[in-house]
Amino acid sequence: MIGVDWGTSSFRAWRIAADGAIAARVAAPRGILTVGPGEFEAVLREAIGPWLADGEDTVLICGMAGSRQGWKEAPYLPCPADAAGLAGALTPVEFAGARCFLVPGLSARDAQGVPEVMRGEETKILGLLDRLPPGPNVVLSPGSHSKWAIVQDGTVLSFLTQFTGEAFAVLSTHTILARTMDKDAPADWGAFDDGLARARQPGGLLHHLFGMRARGLFGELTEAAAASCLSGLLLGHEVAATLPEGTTRVFLVGDGGLMERYARALASFGVTTTDVPEEAAAAGLWRIGQSLENA
Amino acid sequence: MIGVDWGTSSFRAWRIAADGAIAARVAAPRGILTVGPGEFEAVLREAIGPWLADGEDTVLICGMAGSRQGWKEAPYLPCPADAAGLAGALTPVEFAGARCFLVPGLSARDAQGVPEVMRGEETKILGLLDRLPPGPNVVLSPGSHSKWAIVQDGTVLSFLTQFTGEAFAVLSTHTILARTMDKDAPADWGAFDDGLARARQPGGLLHHLFGMRARGLFGELTEAAAASCLSGLLLGHEVAATLPEGTTRVFLVGDGGLMERYARALASFGVTTTDVPEEAAAAGLWRIGQSLENA
Repeated sequence: MIGVDWGTSSFRAWRIAADGAIAARVAAPRGILTVGPGEFEAVLREAIGPWLADGEDTVLICGMAGSRQGWKEAPYLPCPADAAGLAGALTPVEFAGARCFLVPGLSARDAQGVPEVMRGEETKILGLLDRLPPGPNVVLSPGSHSKWAIVQDGTVLSFLTQFTGEAFAVLSTHTILARTMDKDAPADWGAFDDGLARARQPGGLLHHLFGMRARGLFGELTEAAAASCLSGLLLGHEVAATLPEGTTRVFLVGDGGLMERYARALASFGVTTTDVPEEAAAAGLWRIGQSLENA
Repeated sequence: MIGVDWGTSSFRAWRIAADGAIAARVAAPRGILTVGPGEFEAVLREAIGPWLADGEDTVLICGMAGSRQGWKEAPYLPCPADAAGLAGALTPVEFAGARCFLVPGLSARDAQGVPEVMRGEETKILGLLDRLPPGPNVVLSPGSHSKWAIVQDGTVLSFLTQFTGEAFAVLSTHTILARTMDKDAPADWGAFDDGLARARQPGGLLHHLFGMRARGLFGELTEAAAASCLSGLLLGHEVAATLPEGTTRVFLVGDGGLMERYARALASFGVTTTDVPEEAAAAGLWRIGQSLENA
């Protein structure tokens, strides 16, 4: 089979053998933002044409390609949901010469009834099921909108989103904080830890943000340290507000610099983290494919 | 005397009689952002020339004209501070034919030692001293950066800043929330109250922000209601994090639509508010002028 993780700004595909092993991989700078209406089939075919010619006939696609702004909207599947549920809720798309499906995102409601959505992360979460012990586990997918899922025995029971990454982006670009911040400076872990510690003090996030401005005015926070401090501050608030009581281990799924930041933030709360860095989406797509075959 | 409130984007001046009565007033679209280096004296003279010609010889200026980006930097005066302290810490500027001074801003440290600054609000706070009962009072000046001051018997004991207004501006303009928000819609008080209530639920501000996005996707929050909901959410978080325990009354100083929003937010916490809407800066400048004369 062929698995595709087609996001807003990236495209990755894998040729996956029957036993789940990755036989080949391809990546392209063809996130959905670069793809016009009616062009999805052609863009996909250009990337995976050789595998199709070689006999592959099933394509599963996760990520924002299944959003309203993508190829076709694949409606959200409500939690609790597992691989069989996702395989039973695939949205077919026209693709000459192979059967091609979009994986749905997941929806949930928090304890107060406010809705939640994820699209793409559900597949990465499925990809790490083999590594989770029995019973409830906390799985965290960092990103512009980080997703905290409770996963038990193969099922995503519920999840919760934090706006942290996008908040960092706008605060560090469009506010008065940006004027005294060198965003290209290397990570300053001391400043990051200061931000983490600050998040546990009273006054709230909005107060702590102004404190960064005032510290800058008084020469107590350098431009080189400011971005790391802001990152620590936001992650500290996120973890304090989200970490389920009594949690001692969190499974981090993803890649890039955010993984290290979240691991460090969680460690400051006494939590051990396990990274699942590589190609979790491919493993999740294969698992959905298995369910599809067995259905 | 002549009092001037010279801010980032506005200029207001008053001719004030010896008893504090306002004899005349003038406003101009000459905030400091419109004034080039070396132009401050000329801009000021153009606005208040007739009063000078009529015999006024003392000019007191509060606001961002005393910042690094203004006419000249007037160093912050540390709290606790009163009118006499401010009068003793004025920064003179060259102005032919009159004595002319910049009022310093105030600085403070919060309980954790993080610095605080205000510039302009200190003068408005002084302007409402007559209305405050004995003992500690909570005075709140809404704005891009709202200031919560504890004022007792004529002295600003301490204060704390919240980044709420600027956070609203960037979240409603530069994030994914902006895509489903009609910022020009009239205030929707039901949505504002929903936001206030949401702020008291668990998950933290960053989670509540994403919830607005998801509610929009599910048709549970209209574009017309979204800005009011965001405003209520942010003010709810601000008040919950800042309101001193046991507070039953807050004095609101300022003008414009934010006053009504803060009054409503505070009412939801059982707090009565007293508005001090008009020309508090003029009253504060007069009070500093009195201290200057008596020094």
